[in-house]
Amino acid sequence: MLVQSAVLTETDGDPVAVENGGGRSDVLLVCEHASNRLPEAYGDLGLPADALSSHIAWDPGALDVSRLMAKNLDAVLIHQRFSRLIYDCNRPPESPAAMRDVSEVFRIPGNENLSEAEKSRRTTALYLPFQGRIAEEIAVRRAAGRATVLVTVHSFTPVYYGRKREVEIGILHDADSRLADRMLAASADTKLYRIARNEPYGAADGVTHTLEVHALAAGLLNVMIEIRNDLIEEEVGQRVVADFLTGLLRESLATGGR
Amino acid sequence: MLVQSAVLTETDGDPVAVENGGGRSDVLLVCEHASNRLPEAYGDLGLPADALSSHIAWDPGALDVSRLMAKNLDAVLIHQRFSRLIYDCNRPPESPAAMRDVSEVFRIPGNENLSEAEKSRRTTALYLPFQGRIAEEIAVRRAAGRATVLVTVHSFTPVYYGRKREVEIGILHDADSRLADRMLAASADTKLYRIARNEPYGAADGVTHTLEVHALAAGLLNVMIEIRNDLIEEEVGQRVVADFLTGLLRESLATGGR
Repeated sequence: MLVQSAVLTETDGDPVAVENGGGRSDVLLVCEHASNRLPEAYGDLGLPADALSSHIAWDPGALDVSRLMAKNLDAVLIHQRFSRLIYDCNRPPESPAAMRDVSEVFRIPGNENLSEAEKSRRTTALYLPFQGRIAEEIAVRRAAGRATVLVTVHSFTPVYYGRKREVEIGILHDADSRLADRMLAASADTKLYRIARNEPYGAADGVTHTLEVHALAAGLLNVMIEIRNDLIEEEVGQRVVADFLTGLLRESLATGGR
Repeated sequence: MLVQSAVLTETDGDPVAVENGGGRSDVLLVCEHASNRLPEAYGDLGLPADALSSHIAWDPGALDVSRLMAKNLDAVLIHQRFSRLIYDCNRPPESPAAMRDVSEVFRIPGNENLSEAEKSRRTTALYLPFQGRIAEEIAVRRAAGRATVLVTVHSFTPVYYGRKREVEIGILHDADSRLADRMLAASADTKLYRIARNEPYGAADGVTHTLEVHALAAGLLNVMIEIRNDLIEEEVGQRVVADFLTGLLRESLATGGR
């Protein structure tokens, strides 16, 4: 007899959120690390409160910026409603980073020695609906003759393993750098932010999974944006960054073909 | 520069179909091999017409029976709108059976020597939205406090490699045989059909992928039903089988806990 062991329970709700579903922009915004919410069944995973509110649980500010960009662009936004601590939706199920038991300086007790069954439950409950919904959105748009430009929005911690990061906005890409190249060219002279290619990390660190799944093989324009989270702690900073990125995307998409 | 190479184009439409979306039954019906439709971009895959209409392309009659069962039970039905010849949604991406170049006695020219990029495109275009949608449906129901009983509906060819198959309905299961056991017990005395456990094949043949992904680890009641396709060529046969299976499911679900 199998024991029913649910990742998500009644109070948790749908793992996938779609906002501005009727958005008419070619841009599809995705935010994998939008929330630090833990499903009810997992308690606090044995973590202290400061860890649960830190970048190991989510990308602080990323969802707020994504929402502002979605509004600016009239773009669809898909985000994950639960913490990357349970399943990091920007990692494939076979990656050790999908369900980490250590993240930066934190040990994650509730993720130690996970059984294959538990890994499989988390994959099905969180990863599959999320990536599946993105795939379906792209398929439906293609069916309607609409292009998709895939833009994932992340934030990173200003201090990592005790070292300060100078870069403020990272424009990341995998093998297809078309859109990233244009965004970097279009922002080369800005004095507003320190912008860098593939900083503070890049494809070799395994962070371009969503781009790889949906955009690379299909040839869709794509980019991953990383924002240093101290810039987007407050609404003012979020608005300035969102408006800057909106303009950068608009200009970059206007200058090239699809 | 990447070349846009789409699996599905404008005329193809959404790969996933959800019917009776508001259905109130605990049963969730899934039909992975519902259609022999090929996406426009693939022509006929180099196959003759008889192959394209045969069981290697789809499970003839399975969608019709599923629809009748969905109506009888007031159940949600999720089915794939494209042929298993492009991607067999009851197989994981790493399985050689996901995109076969040989099926039974047919060579499939359009599937020979597929590149990794093409396999990845097909996986994202067809498998991911399909299995993702099932995962999301189950997550949403759980969030609403509703149980899910996963029932996949298939048909099989009466003659395979030249040998006649005597079984008429197969009740298949993986490690969790709770529902299958009850259905087999409840139908033990029927004179209507020759019914067998794990016939004409079983979990060891890799046919329980959908059950494995969504039901096994989560502990959901589940079963895979295989119907010999000569019984469901016409509407009358489809109705008789659908009514029989509906009764069997109802009785089996009434006799046990969830």
